[in-house]
Amino acid sequence: MRLARIAHPAGGVAFAAIEGDDSDAQVLEIAEHPFGQPNFTGRRWPLADVRLLAPILPSKIIAVGRNYAAHASEFGNEVPAEPMIFMKPSTSVIGPNAAIKLPPSSSQVDFEGELAVVIGQPVKNVPAARANAAILGYTIANDVSARDQQKSDGQWGRAKGYDTFCPLGPWIETSLDPGDLALRTELDGEVRQDSRTSALVHKIPDLVEFVSTVMTLLPGDIIITGTPEGVGPMAPGQQVSITVEGIGTLTNPVAAG
Amino acid sequence: MRLARIAHPAGGVAFAAIEGDDSDAQVLEIAEHPFGQPNFTGRRWPLADVRLLAPILPSKIIAVGRNYAAHASEFGNEVPAEPMIFMKPSTSVIGPNAAIKLPPSSSQVDFEGELAVVIGQPVKNVPAARANAAILGYTIANDVSARDQQKSDGQWGRAKGYDTFCPLGPWIETSLDPGDLALRTELDGEVRQDSRTSALVHKIPDLVEFVSTVMTLLPGDIIITGTPEGVGPMAPGQQVSITVEGIGTLTNPVAAG
Repeated sequence: MRLARIAHPAGGVAFAAIEGDDSDAQVLEIAEHPFGQPNFTGRRWPLADVRLLAPILPSKIIAVGRNYAAHASEFGNEVPAEPMIFMKPSTSVIGPNAAIKLPPSSSQVDFEGELAVVIGQPVKNVPAARANAAILGYTIANDVSARDQQKSDGQWGRAKGYDTFCPLGPWIETSLDPGDLALRTELDGEVRQDSRTSALVHKIPDLVEFVSTVMTLLPGDIIITGTPEGVGPMAPGQQVSITVEGIGTLTNPVAAG
Repeated sequence: MRLARIAHPAGGVAFAAIEGDDSDAQVLEIAEHPFGQPNFTGRRWPLADVRLLAPILPSKIIAVGRNYAAHASEFGNEVPAEPMIFMKPSTSVIGPNAAIKLPPSSSQVDFEGELAVVIGQPVKNVPAARANAAILGYTIANDVSARDQQKSDGQWGRAKGYDTFCPLGPWIETSLDPGDLALRTELDGEVRQDSRTSALVHKIPDLVEFVSTVMTLLPGDIIITGTPEGVGPMAPGQQVSITVEGIGTLTNPVAAG
Protein backbone atom coordinates (compact mmCIF):
# COMPACT_ATOMS: atom_id res chain seq x y z
CA MET A 1 0.00 0.00 0.00
CA ARG A 2 1.08 3.55 -0.69
CA LEU A 3 0.49 5.89 2.26
CA ALA A 4 0.58 9.64 1.74
CA ARG A 5 -0.22 12.82 3.60
CA ILE A 6 -2.22 15.24 1.52
CA ALA A 7 -3.73 18.68 1.33
CA HIS A 8 -7.09 17.87 -0.29
CA PRO A 9 -9.63 19.87 -2.29
CA ALA A 10 -12.12 19.97 0.62
CA GLY A 11 -9.65 22.19 2.43
CA GLY A 12 -7.90 19.94 4.93
CA VAL A 13 -4.84 17.84 5.60
CA ALA A 14 -5.11 14.08 6.03
CA PHE A 15 -3.30 10.82 5.73
CA ALA A 16 -4.46 8.84 2.71
CA ALA A 17 -3.87 5.64 0.79
CA ILE A 18 -3.14 5.82 -2.93
CA GLU A 19 -4.84 3.30 -5.22
CA GLY A 20 -4.04 2.79 -8.86
CA ASP A 21 -1.28 4.20 -11.00
CA ASP A 22 -0.59 7.26 -13.05
CA SER A 23 -3.56 9.21 -14.33
CA ASP A 24 -6.13 6.83 -12.80
CA ALA A 25 -4.70 7.04 -9.29
CA GLN A 26 -7.12 7.86 -6.46
CA VAL A 27 -6.39 8.92 -2.89
CA LEU A 28 -8.56 7.47 -0.10
CA GLU A 29 -8.71 9.59 3.04
CA ILE A 30 -7.67 7.92 6.33
CA ALA A 31 -9.60 8.99 9.44
CA GLU A 32 -6.79 9.26 11.95
CA HIS A 33 -3.28 7.97 11.42
CA PRO A 34 -1.77 5.37 9.12
CA PHE A 35 -0.38 3.02 11.80
CA GLY A 36 -1.88 -0.41 12.35
CA GLN A 37 -5.08 -0.95 10.35
CA PRO A 38 -6.11 2.46 8.95
CA ASN A 39 -9.76 3.53 9.05
CA PHE A 40 -11.00 5.11 5.84
CA THR A 41 -13.48 7.99 5.87
CA GLY A 42 -14.96 7.10 2.50
CA ARG A 43 -13.83 10.36 0.93
CA ARG A 44 -11.60 10.02 -2.11
CA TRP A 45 -10.11 12.27 -4.76
CA PRO A 46 -8.10 11.85 -7.93
CA LEU A 47 -4.39 12.00 -7.06
CA ALA A 48 -4.07 14.86 -9.51
CA ASP A 49 -6.44 16.98 -7.38
CA VAL A 50 -4.50 16.79 -4.12
CA ARG A 51 -1.14 18.17 -3.05
CA LEU A 52 1.27 15.65 -1.57
CA LEU A 53 2.89 16.70 1.71
CA ALA A 54 5.75 15.01 3.54
CA PRO A 55 4.20 11.56 4.10
CA ILE A 56 4.98 11.67 7.83
CA LEU A 57 6.07 14.24 10.42
CA PRO A 58 8.67 12.26 12.40
CA SER A 59 9.40 12.88 16.09
CA LYS A 60 13.00 12.18 15.18
CA ILE A 61 15.17 11.48 12.15
CA ILE A 62 18.21 9.29 12.60
CA ALA A 63 20.71 9.47 9.76
CA VAL A 64 23.46 6.97 8.99
CA GLY A 65 26.78 8.29 7.69
CA ARG A 66 29.20 6.59 5.31
CA ASN A 67 26.98 3.58 4.66
CA TYR A 68 27.93 3.10 0.98
CA ALA A 69 31.65 2.32 0.56
CA ALA A 70 31.95 4.24 -2.72
CA HIS A 71 30.51 7.39 -1.10
CA ALA A 72 32.76 7.10 1.97
CA SER A 73 35.77 6.86 -0.31
CA GLU A 74 34.76 9.83 -2.47
CA PHE A 75 35.53 11.99 0.60
CA GLY A 76 38.54 9.88 1.61
CA ASN A 77 36.77 8.24 4.56
CA GLU A 78 36.72 4.66 5.76
CA VAL A 79 33.51 2.73 6.19
CA PRO A 80 32.84 2.60 9.95
CA ALA A 81 32.74 -0.83 11.59
CA GLU A 82 29.54 0.13 13.38
CA PRO A 83 26.89 2.48 11.96
CA MET A 84 27.78 6.14 12.48
CA ILE A 85 24.57 7.92 13.40
CA PHE A 86 23.57 11.56 13.68
CA MET A 87 20.27 13.39 13.82
CA LYS A 88 18.37 15.83 11.63
CA PRO A 89 15.74 18.07 13.27
CA SER A 90 12.05 17.50 12.54
CA THR A 91 11.91 21.13 11.40
CA SER A 92 14.10 20.22 8.40
CA VAL A 93 11.32 18.13 6.82
CA ILE A 94 9.57 19.30 3.65
CA GLY A 95 7.39 17.41 1.21
CA PRO A 96 7.57 16.71 -2.52
CA ASN A 97 7.83 19.77 -4.77
CA ALA A 98 8.58 22.13 -1.87
CA ALA A 99 11.71 24.21 -2.35
CA ILE A 100 15.06 23.34 -0.80
CA LYS A 101 16.33 26.73 0.39
CA LEU A 102 20.07 27.33 0.22
CA PRO A 103 21.21 29.29 3.29
CA PRO A 104 23.38 32.32 2.51
CA SER A 105 25.91 31.17 5.13
CA SER A 106 26.96 28.17 3.01
CA SER A 107 28.83 28.19 -0.28
CA GLN A 108 28.09 24.54 -1.12
CA VAL A 109 24.85 22.70 -0.44
CA ASP A 110 24.77 19.12 -1.74
CA PHE A 111 21.97 16.66 -2.48
CA GLU A 112 22.19 13.16 -1.02
CA GLY A 113 19.60 10.65 -2.26
CA GLU A 114 18.66 8.03 0.34
CA LEU A 115 16.22 5.25 1.11
CA ALA A 116 14.28 6.10 4.29
CA VAL A 117 12.83 3.58 6.74
CA VAL A 118 9.58 4.62 8.47
CA ILE A 119 9.02 3.08 11.91
CA GLY A 120 5.54 1.67 12.56
CA GLN A 121 5.37 1.08 16.30
CA PRO A 122 7.17 1.98 19.53
CA VAL A 123 10.20 -0.29 19.83
CA LYS A 124 13.38 -0.67 21.87
CA ASN A 125 16.10 -3.32 21.48
CA VAL A 126 14.66 -4.93 18.33
CA PRO A 127 16.76 -7.86 17.08
CA ALA A 128 17.57 -7.61 13.36
CA ALA A 129 15.58 -10.79 12.75
CA ARG A 130 12.41 -9.05 13.99
CA ALA A 131 13.11 -5.62 12.49
CA ASN A 132 10.48 -6.01 9.77
CA ALA A 133 7.68 -5.98 12.31
CA ALA A 134 8.86 -2.56 13.54
CA ILE A 135 8.76 -1.02 10.06
CA LEU A 136 5.69 0.68 8.57
CA GLY A 137 7.29 1.08 5.15
CA TYR A 138 9.81 2.95 3.05
CA THR A 139 10.03 6.37 1.50
CA ILE A 140 12.72 8.54 -0.11
CA ALA A 141 14.82 11.21 1.60
CA ASN A 142 17.23 13.86 0.47
CA ASP A 143 19.84 14.33 3.21
CA VAL A 144 20.64 17.88 2.10
CA SER A 145 24.03 18.94 3.47
CA ALA A 146 25.94 22.24 3.67
CA ARG A 147 29.20 20.55 2.72
CA ASP A 148 31.51 23.39 3.67
CA GLN A 149 30.03 23.60 7.17
CA GLN A 150 29.97 19.82 7.49
CA LYS A 151 33.73 19.80 6.92
CA SER A 152 34.53 22.76 9.16
CA ASP A 153 32.17 22.13 12.09
CA GLY A 154 33.19 18.64 13.18
CA GLN A 155 29.67 17.81 14.38
CA TRP A 156 27.02 17.92 11.66
CA GLY A 157 24.14 19.50 13.57
CA ARG A 158 24.33 22.73 11.61
CA ALA A 159 25.34 21.42 8.19
CA LYS A 160 22.53 18.85 8.08
CA GLY A 161 19.95 20.75 10.16
CA TYR A 162 18.71 23.73 8.18
CA ASP A 163 14.99 24.14 7.53
CA THR A 164 14.12 22.38 4.21
CA PHE A 165 17.19 20.09 4.42
CA CYS A 166 15.12 16.88 4.72
CA PRO A 167 12.75 16.45 1.78
CA LEU A 168 10.65 13.28 2.30
CA GLY A 169 8.25 11.53 -0.04
CA PRO A 170 6.42 11.20 -2.29
CA TRP A 171 4.72 8.53 -0.17
CA ILE A 172 5.39 5.51 2.03
CA GLU A 173 5.37 2.11 0.32
CA THR A 174 4.41 -0.54 2.87
CA SER A 175 4.95 -3.66 0.72
CA LEU A 176 8.54 -3.65 -0.37
CA ASP A 177 11.69 -5.71 0.03
CA PRO A 178 14.36 -3.01 0.45
CA GLY A 179 17.31 -5.34 -0.04
CA ASP A 180 18.22 -4.58 -3.66
CA LEU A 181 16.48 -1.53 -5.08
CA ALA A 182 17.86 0.84 -7.71
CA LEU A 183 18.47 4.33 -6.29
CA ARG A 184 19.04 7.17 -8.77
CA THR A 185 19.44 10.92 -8.26
CA GLU A 186 19.04 13.35 -11.14
CA LEU A 187 19.95 17.03 -11.10
CA ASP A 188 18.05 18.88 -13.83
CA GLY A 189 17.50 15.52 -15.52
CA GLU A 190 21.16 14.47 -15.49
CA VAL A 191 21.92 11.26 -13.56
CA ARG A 192 24.30 12.02 -10.69
CA GLN A 193 23.82 9.07 -8.31
CA ASP A 194 23.10 5.59 -9.63
CA SER A 195 23.46 2.73 -7.18
CA ARG A 196 21.52 -0.04 -5.49
CA THR A 197 20.50 -0.54 -1.87
CA SER A 198 22.31 -3.89 -2.00
CA ALA A 199 25.47 -1.78 -1.65
CA LEU A 200 24.43 -0.62 1.84
CA VAL A 201 27.28 -1.52 4.22
CA HIS A 202 25.01 -1.86 7.27
CA LYS A 203 21.73 -3.40 6.13
CA ILE A 204 18.31 -2.17 7.19
CA PRO A 205 17.54 -4.89 9.77
CA ASP A 206 20.93 -4.26 11.38
CA LEU A 207 20.34 -0.50 11.39
CA VAL A 208 16.97 -0.95 13.12
CA GLU A 209 18.62 -3.18 15.71
CA PHE A 210 21.53 -0.80 16.22
CA VAL A 211 19.47 2.39 16.53
CA SER A 212 16.76 0.79 18.67
CA THR A 213 19.42 -0.48 21.07
CA VAL A 214 20.38 3.15 21.66
CA MET A 215 17.00 4.88 21.64
CA THR A 216 13.32 4.07 21.72
CA LEU A 217 11.86 4.44 18.22
CA LEU A 218 8.34 5.82 17.92
CA PRO A 219 5.73 5.46 15.16
CA GLY A 220 6.68 7.75 12.30
CA ASP A 221 10.35 8.02 13.24
CA ILE A 222 12.66 7.88 10.26
CA ILE A 223 16.00 6.19 9.69
CA ILE A 224 17.71 7.48 6.57
CA THR A 225 20.12 4.85 5.48
CA GLY A 226 23.01 6.69 3.84
CA THR A 227 23.79 7.97 0.37
CA PRO A 228 25.78 6.39 -2.47
CA GLU A 229 28.55 8.06 -4.43
CA GLY A 230 27.88 10.96 -6.77
CA VAL A 231 26.73 13.63 -4.31
CA GLY A 232 27.17 17.17 -5.51
CA PRO A 233 26.12 20.81 -5.16
CA MET A 234 22.79 22.37 -6.10
CA ALA A 235 22.17 25.90 -7.37
CA PRO A 236 19.02 28.05 -7.19
CA GLY A 237 16.70 27.28 -10.09
CA GLN A 238 17.80 23.66 -10.37
CA GLN A 239 15.60 20.66 -9.62
CA VAL A 240 16.67 17.45 -7.86
CA SER A 241 14.83 14.15 -8.32
CA ILE A 242 15.53 10.97 -6.38
CA THR A 243 14.00 7.73 -7.64
CA VAL A 244 13.95 4.51 -5.64
CA GLU A 245 12.72 1.41 -7.43
CA GLY A 246 9.37 0.25 -6.09
CA ILE A 247 8.62 3.56 -4.36
CA GLY A 248 8.61 6.43 -6.85
CA THR A 249 10.33 9.77 -7.33
CA LEU A 250 10.88 12.61 -4.87
CA THR A 251 11.37 15.90 -6.71
CA ASN A 252 12.25 19.26 -5.17
CA PRO A 253 13.17 22.59 -6.72
CA VAL A 254 16.12 24.51 -5.31
CA ALA A 255 15.88 28.17 -4.31
CA ALA A 256 18.02 30.82 -2.67
CA GLY A 257 17.39 30.92 1.09
CA MET B 1 7.92 32.01 38.07
CA ARG B 2 8.83 28.35 38.42
CA LEU B 3 7.10 26.12 35.87
CA ALA B 4 7.01 22.38 36.40
CA ARG B 5 5.37 19.31 34.96
CA ILE B 6 3.93 17.06 37.61
CA ALA B 7 2.25 13.75 38.35
CA HIS B 8 -0.30 14.84 40.95
CA PRO B 9 -2.23 13.06 43.72
CA ALA B 10 -5.52 13.23 41.77
CA GLY B 11 -3.98 10.81 39.29
CA GLY B 12 -2.96 12.94 36.32
CA VAL B 13 -0.10 14.76 34.66
CA ALA B 14 -0.15 18.54 34.26
CA PHE B 15 1.95 21.62 33.91
CA ALA B 16 2.02 23.66 37.10
CA ALA B 17 3.50 26.76 38.68
CA ILE B 18 5.36 26.46 41.96
CA GLU B 19 4.73 29.08 44.63
CA GLY B 20 6.71 29.48 47.83
CA ASP B 21 9.87 27.79 48.96
CA ASP B 22 10.92 24.63 50.73
CA SER B 23 8.37 22.94 52.94
CA ASP B 24 5.67 25.55 52.27
CA ALA B 25 5.85 25.28 48.46
CA GLN B 26 2.57 24.73 46.62
CA VAL B 27 2.02 23.65 43.02
CA LEU B 28 -0.80 25.35 41.07
CA GLU B 29 -2.16 23.29 38.19
CA ILE B 30 -2.10 24.90 34.71
CA ALA B 31 -5.03 24.06 32.41
CA GLU B 32 -3.22 23.56 29.13
CA HIS B 33 0.38 24.54 28.47
CA PRO B 34 2.78 26.96 30.12
CA PHE B 35 3.42 29.20 27.10
CA GLY B 36 2.14 32.76 27.02
CA GLN B 37 -0.15 33.55 29.94
CA PRO B 38 -0.99 30.24 31.64
CA ASN B 39 -4.56 29.51 32.73
CA PHE B 40 -4.83 28.00 36.20
CA THR B 41 -7.42 25.36 37.02
CA GLY B 42 -7.65 26.33 40.68
CA ARG B 43 -6.36 22.94 41.84
CA ARG B 44 -3.23 23.04 44.01
CA TRP B 45 -1.19 20.62 46.06
CA PRO B 46 1.79 20.82 48.39
CA LEU B 47 4.98 20.35 46.37
CA ALA B 48 5.82 17.43 48.63
CA ASP B 49 2.70 15.56 47.43
CA VAL B 50 3.49 15.64 43.69
CA ARG B 51 6.16 13.97 41.61
CA LEU B 52 8.20 16.29 39.40
CA LEU B 53 8.55 15.14 35.78
CA ALA B 54 10.80 16.58 33.10
CA PRO B 55 9.48 20.18 33.02
CA ILE B 56 8.98 20.05 29.25
CA LEU B 57 8.92 17.44 26.47
CA PRO B 58 10.89 19.19 23.72
CA SER B 59 10.33 18.56 20.02
CA LYS B 60 14.09 18.92 19.69
CA ILE B 61 17.18 19.36 21.84
CA ILE B 62 20.11 21.27 20.39
CA ALA B 63 23.35 20.83 22.28
CA VAL B 64 26.42 23.04 22.06
CA GLY B 65 29.84 21.40 22.22
CA ARG B 66 33.06 22.84 23.67
CA ASN B 67 31.45 26.03 24.96
CA TYR B 68 33.60 26.38 28.10
CA ALA B 69 37.30 26.81 27.29
CA ALA B 70 38.47 24.81 30.31
CA HIS B 71 36.30 21.84 29.30
CA ALA B 72 37.44 21.96 25.67
CA SER B 73 41.07 21.89 26.84
CA GLU B 74 40.53 18.99 29.25
CA PHE B 75 40.06 16.83 26.14
CA GLY B 76 42.76 18.67 24.17
CA ASN B 77 40.27 20.50 21.94
CA GLU B 78 40.18 24.09 20.75
CA VAL B 79 37.18 26.31 21.36
CA PRO B 80 35.34 26.57 18.03
CA ALA B 81 35.03 30.02 16.46
CA GLU B 82 31.33 29.37 15.82
CA PRO B 83 29.09 27.25 18.06
CA MET B 84 29.43 23.53 17.34
CA ILE B 85 25.95 22.05 17.55
CA PHE B 86 24.56 18.53 17.67
CA MET B 87 21.24 17.02 18.64
CA LYS B 88 19.96 14.74 21.36
CA PRO B 89 16.75 12.77 20.69
CA SER B 90 13.56 13.67 22.59
CA THR B 91 13.47 10.05 23.78
CA SER B 92 16.60 10.70 25.87
CA VAL B 93 14.68 13.02 28.23
CA ILE B 94 13.97 11.96 31.82
CA GLY B 95 12.87 14.03 34.81
CA PRO B 96 14.34 14.64 38.25
CA ASN B 97 15.03 11.54 40.37
CA ALA B 98 14.56 9.17 37.42
CA ALA B 99 17.48 6.80 36.89
CA ILE B 100 20.20 7.37 34.32
CA LYS B 101 20.70 3.90 32.84
CA LEU B 102 24.21 2.96 31.77
CA PRO B 103 24.10 0.95 28.54
CA PRO B 104 26.11 -2.28 28.62
CA SER B 105 27.75 -1.33 25.29
CA SER B 106 29.71 1.52 26.91
CA SER B 107 32.54 1.27 29.42
CA GLN B 108 32.46 4.96 30.39
CA VAL B 109 29.36 7.11 30.78
CA ASP B 110 30.04 10.67 31.97
CA PHE B 111 27.87 13.37 33.56
CA GLU B 112 27.93 16.87 32.03
CA GLY B 113 26.12 19.57 34.00
CA GLU B 114 24.63 22.32 31.82
CA LEU B 115 22.34 25.31 31.84
CA ALA B 116 19.40 24.69 29.48
CA VAL B 117 17.47 27.37 27.59
CA VAL B 118 13.74 26.66 27.02
CA ILE B 119 12.23 28.29 23.94
CA GLY B 120 8.87 30.01 24.43
CA GLN B 121 7.55 30.68 20.94
CA PRO B 122 8.11 29.68 17.31
CA VAL B 123 11.08 31.66 16.00
CA LYS B 124 13.45 31.78 13.02
CA ASN B 125 16.37 34.16 12.49
CA VAL B 126 16.20 35.85 15.90
CA PRO B 127 18.85 38.56 16.35
CA ALA B 128 20.79 38.18 19.61
CA ALA B 129 19.41 41.51 20.79
CA ARG B 130 15.88 40.09 20.67
CA ALA B 131 16.70 36.58 21.92
CA ASN B 132 15.17 37.17 25.34
CA ALA B 133 11.68 37.44 23.85
CA ALA B 134 12.07 33.94 22.35
CA ILE B 135 12.97 32.36 25.71
CA LEU B 136 10.42 30.93 28.14
CA GLY B 137 13.00 30.34 30.85
CA TYR B 138 15.89 28.21 32.05
CA THR B 139 16.29 24.76 33.50
CA ILE B 140 19.14 22.34 34.19
CA ALA B 141 20.31 19.51 31.93
CA ASN B 142 22.72 16.63 32.26
CA ASP B 143 24.22 15.95 28.81
CA VAL B 144 25.01 12.33 29.67
CA SER B 145 27.65 10.98 27.29
CA ALA B 146 29.08 7.54 26.53
CA ARG B 147 32.61 8.90 26.37
CA ASP B 148 34.22 5.87 24.75
CA GLN B 149 31.66 5.84 21.92
CA GLN B 150 31.85 9.62 21.56
CA LYS B 151 35.58 9.29 20.88
CA SER B 152 35.32 6.29 18.55
CA ASP B 153 32.22 7.19 16.54
CA GLY B 154 33.12 10.61 15.13
CA GLN B 155 29.50 11.76 15.11
CA TRP B 156 27.90 11.84 18.56
CA GLY B 157 24.40 10.59 17.72
CA ARG B 158 24.92 7.32 19.55
CA ALA B 159 27.12 8.48 22.44
CA LYS B 160 24.73 11.29 23.42
CA GLY B 161 21.46 9.67 22.33
CA TYR B 162 20.67 6.77 24.65
CA ASP B 163 17.34 6.71 26.47
CA THR B 164 17.77 8.49 29.88
CA PHE B 165 20.80 10.50 28.64
CA CYS B 166 19.06 13.88 28.97
CA PRO B 167 17.82 14.49 32.52
CA LEU B 168 15.98 17.84 32.65
CA GLY B 169 14.63 19.80 35.61
CA PRO B 170 13.68 20.24 38.35
CA TRP B 171 11.61 23.10 36.85
CA ILE B 172 11.83 26.06 34.48
CA GLU B 173 12.67 29.42 36.05
CA THR B 174 11.17 32.18 33.90
CA SER B 175 12.67 35.20 35.72
CA LEU B 176 16.41 34.86 35.59
CA ASP B 177 19.42 36.62 34.15
CA PRO B 178 21.55 33.69 32.93
CA GLY B 179 24.71 35.74 32.40
CA ASP B 180 26.69 34.84 35.52
CA LEU B 181 25.23 31.94 37.49
CA ALA B 182 27.17 29.42 39.56
CA LEU B 183 26.96 25.89 38.09
CA ARG B 184 28.04 22.99 40.29
CA THR B 185 27.90 19.23 39.75
CA GLU B 186 28.24 16.81 42.63
CA LEU B 187 28.75 13.07 42.37
CA ASP B 188 27.67 11.36 45.60
CA GLY B 189 28.02 14.74 47.31
CA GLU B 190 31.55 15.42 46.06
CA VAL B 191 31.94 18.57 43.95
CA ARG B 192 33.17 17.66 40.47
CA GLN B 193 32.21 20.67 38.33
CA ASP B 194 32.28 24.19 39.77
CA SER B 195 32.09 27.03 37.27
CA ARG B 196 29.96 29.99 36.27
CA THR B 197 27.86 30.65 33.16
CA SER B 198 29.92 33.81 32.64
CA ALA B 199 32.59 31.42 31.32
CA LEU B 200 30.37 30.41 28.36
CA VAL B 201 32.36 31.08 25.18
CA HIS B 202 29.26 31.68 23.04
CA LYS B 203 26.68 33.49 25.17
CA ILE B 204 23.01 32.60 25.29
CA PRO B 205 21.70 35.43 23.05
CA ASP B 206 24.30 34.50 20.44
CA LEU B 207 23.39 30.80 20.70
CA VAL B 208 19.70 31.59 20.13
CA GLU B 209 20.61 33.70 17.12
CA PHE B 210 22.97 31.05 15.73
CA VAL B 211 20.64 28.09 16.16
CA SER B 212 17.52 29.96 14.98
CA THR B 213 19.37 31.03 11.84
CA VAL B 214 19.74 27.33 11.04
CA MET B 215 16.42 25.91 12.18
CA THR B 216 12.99 27.05 13.30
CA LEU B 217 12.73 26.77 17.07
CA LEU B 218 9.39 25.70 18.52
CA PRO B 219 7.86 26.26 21.96
CA GLY B 220 9.49 23.86 24.40
CA ASP B 221 12.59 23.27 22.33
CA ILE B 222 15.76 23.15 24.39
CA ILE B 223 19.24 24.51 23.81
CA ILE B 224 21.75 23.02 26.23
CA THR B 225 24.62 25.43 26.43
CA GLY B 226 27.70 23.29 27.06
CA THR B 227 29.45 21.89 30.11
CA PRO B 228 32.40 23.24 32.13
CA GLU B 229 35.51 21.28 33.11
CA GLY B 230 35.36 18.42 35.58
CA VAL B 231 33.21 15.91 33.68
CA GLY B 232 33.68 12.33 34.73
CA PRO B 233 32.26 8.81 34.80
CA MET B 234 29.29 7.55 36.80
CA ALA B 235 28.79 4.07 38.25
CA PRO B 236 25.58 2.23 39.13
CA GLY B 237 24.41 3.15 42.62
CA GLN B 238 25.86 6.67 42.47
CA GLN B 239 23.82 9.88 42.42
CA VAL B 240 24.57 12.99 40.37
CA SER B 241 23.28 16.44 41.36
CA ILE B 242 23.61 19.57 39.24
CA THR B 243 22.88 22.92 40.89
CA VAL B 244 22.47 26.15 38.95
CA GLU B 245 22.18 29.34 40.98
CA GLY B 246 18.69 30.83 40.77
CA ILE B 247 17.12 27.60 39.45
CA GLY B 248 17.67 24.72 41.84
CA THR B 249 19.14 21.23 41.81
CA LEU B 250 18.60 18.37 39.35
CA THR B 251 19.35 15.04 40.99
CA ASN B 252 19.36 11.63 39.30
CA PRO B 253 20.43 8.21 40.52
CA VAL B 254 22.56 6.04 38.25
CA ALA B 255 21.67 2.43 37.43
CA ALA B 256 22.91 -0.39 35.24
CA GLY B 257 21.06 -0.36 31.87
